[in-house]
Amino acid sequence: MENNAKQEEEKGEVVVNPWEVSSTTGKIDYDKLIDKFGCQRLEETLIQRVERLTSQPPHVFLRRGVFFAHRDFNEILDAYERGEKFYLYTGRGPSSEALHLGHLVPFMFTKYLQDTFKVPLVIQLTDDEKCIWKNLSVEESQRLARENAKDIIACGFDITRTFIFSDFDFVGGAFYKNMVKVAKCVTVNKVVGIFGFTNEDIIAKISFPPVQAVPSFPSSFPHLFSGRDNLRCLIPCAIDQDPYFRMTRDVAPRLGYQKPALIESAFFPALQGETGKMSASDPNSAIYVTDSGKDIKNKVNKYAFSGGQDSIENHRKYGANLEVDIPVKYLSFFLEDDAEVEHIKKEYGAGRMLTGEVKKRLIEVLTEVVERHRRARAAVTEEMVDAFMAVRPMPNMFN
Amino acid sequence: MENNAKQEEEKGEVVVNPWEVSSTTGKIDYDKLIDKFGCQRLEETLIQRVERLTSQPPHVFLRRGVFFAHRDFNEILDAYERGEKFYLYTGRGPSSEALHLGHLVPFMFTKYLQDTFKVPLVIQLTDDEKCIWKNLSVEESQRLARENAKDIIACGFDITRTFIFSDFDFVGGAFYKNMVKVAKCVTVNKVVGIFGFTNEDIIAKISFPPVQAVPSFPSSFPHLFSGRDNLRCLIPCAIDQDPYFRMTRDVAPRLGYQKPALIESAFFPALQGETGKMSASDPNSAIYVTDSGKDIKNKVNKYAFSGGQDSIENHRKYGANLEVDIPVKYLSFFLEDDAEVEHIKKEYGAGRMLTGEVKKRLIEVLTEVVERHRRARAAVTEEMVDAFMAVRPMPNMFN
Repeated sequence: MENNAKQEEEKGEVVVNPWEVSSTTGKIDYDKLIDKFGCQRLEETLIQRVERLTSQPPHVFLRRGVFFAHRDFNEILDAYERGEKFYLYTGRGPSSEALHLGHLVPFMFTKYLQDTFKVPLVIQLTDDEKCIWKNLSVEESQRLARENAKDIIACGFDITRTFIFSDFDFVGGAFYKNMVKVAKCVTVNKVVGIFGFTNEDIIAKISFPPVQAVPSFPSSFPHLFSGRDNLRCLIPCAIDQDPYFRMTRDVAPRLGYQKPALIESAFFPALQGETGKMSASDPNSAIYVTDSGKDIKNKVNKYAFSGGQDSIENHRKYGANLEVDIPVKYLSFFLEDDAEVEHIKKEYGAGRMLTGEVKKRLIEVLTEVVERHRRARAAVTEEMVDAFMAVRPMPNMFN
Repeated sequence: MENNAKQEEEKGEVVVNPWEVSSTTGKIDYDKLIDKFGCQRLEETLIQRVERLTSQPPHVFLRRGVFFAHRDFNEILDAYERGEKFYLYTGRGPSSEALHLGHLVPFMFTKYLQDTFKVPLVIQLTDDEKCIWKNLSVEESQRLARENAKDIIACGFDITRTFIFSDFDFVGGAFYKNMVKVAKCVTVNKVVGIFGFTNEDIIAKISFPPVQAVPSFPSSFPHLFSGRDNLRCLIPCAIDQDPYFRMTRDVAPRLGYQKPALIESAFFPALQGETGKMSASDPNSAIYVTDSGKDIKNKVNKYAFSGGQDSIENHRKYGANLEVDIPVKYLSFFLEDDAEVEHIKKEYGAGRMLTGEVKKRLIEVLTEVVERHRRARAAVTEEMVDAFMAVRPMPNMFN
């Protein structure tokens, strides 16, 4: 399997799994990825249906195609239309102290889903995963999980509907029982096929997929969903997590459980260009939520890959290549005003606007996003973290 | 690995792992097993040392060589002699409702160790293992674990020093952290080599060995051993469990943990003869603790393989073959009186005593053992099970 992945890469194909996102062509072909993974494109009609059902404009990440693929999202909407409830499940592998903007994307979108559909949300911090893959100590993984929880809480989740847990804290009981049930349905060959594990890998890796699978099942959370075994689960996540949930969806019917539905995002590109996800090991590849206004200005001006032409004359003549331009891509994630985004694209694409002007606007937008996050995070106390992570019933989570 | 095991079996060699004990020669060569596993023979000098240190005769299972092998048991005695404490760890895979006499052997011996050395004891009920290997439901495995706990408690363990836990109940927290730590130190190749797993196996099997490994480490039980990370662990078990603890001992130093010591027993033979362990699938291969006096009499008379000769004349002439005689073997487990055992062996071996007489004595002895167990088990209440299984400190466990 690893060899297959290598061959594909050599042919200029894309490698997307939970631990690696790369493409030798410098671009992820998301259409190909949809075909390869077997998920569905999030069609315009489905987005219109969301708008109709929720009586509000769809989130900017839906309007701009950031969330572009799904599995059974239509069934979640069917259920919602019938007046049935569902719950949201997302997560984070706490591998770094500070989050970058790409990390915020699924949480911003999940908050929108929670606010709009008024549903409970479970957020898994896979400190065990990072301890296994990043060779962090148990203690350091747990510390990072708690730090990351603060950033997640700063996204504005509703404490009456949100349960955040770390695996090292929460694995056990009904959750562990479901882990064993899942692990009984999956062979070593299967995880080799899905994740590319080899026999040289540590067994900790082989043991992990069920841990990420089971929050898809309401019975893993008896303190929240006792007696609601048929509650549907919707997972907003980046598409690199799809392999976990392909496995989960395969297994679910054999356990008498509902398959989780998914709504999946593209990757937030690195400042240097759209070759994959941002890299935690290169701080200049991303804007961090801890970056100062000066950092942001410097990083955008210095590193944000421009689609503008090499001279002002050529730029005025040919216009910017919006396909590869990072400032325009970043604006399309974070500048909410559709009219302004369209205006910039039109003027910049036609060469009437220069890279410097677009970057200036981007710096304003990102500084505001980061400033807002910083203020919100500063207000998150240890007591709030404890409260979000408390194993407790949430009596009003469906109201 | 599976192929290796098969080849060995074809050569008439022995197969001993946690799931299979067999030998085509009809006999387990325990000397060979010691060499193969790399453990040490429990020498007479070590047994004498136990006698000296404890100022009482060594347990019948030591005197008669039932416990015949060990790893670092001498180091446990060194520590004890220095006035240091240790703890005991044993367990049971709850695959059946009723225990047979072979199942009682490690528990009877563990009780002796606990009483003699005045040390705490943890007993793991691997309901997850049986759910995985025997394809029992989670609920049925848990029910059997609780039923088996009653039989274990009936062996007379001291509640002030004994913590019984089921994996489905107890996995989590510090225990799960240690599972992940162990699983990070072991490759798939390694468990293939130790346990003979293949890529067709379910990942639940690959995930299990760390679960049986970590009770060897005191940090897995913070409610008992908090701050005593260097406490040594002694594991009394049948030798088929050795592979788990070879793995555990390999891994321990890499985690900064003490290696567990082991004291290992031979298998209690089936009524039909010493070809391995008794089979749960053939009720006539074993005496169960639920058997009536009539059952015992019938089973011993009908099925207990006799080393006596085929006619009284030949028997008087040649005597019984004690090497293969099951009544004598069973008596050597359960008849405490050394003089009487010697007498029977001498008279029976010389042909002066007949099989019927030996079987009669065995029926008396087993009926008493089973009757005593039945009375003790009948006195075990649900509240006692709850009390033994409560996650609690045991303040007097070392007194």
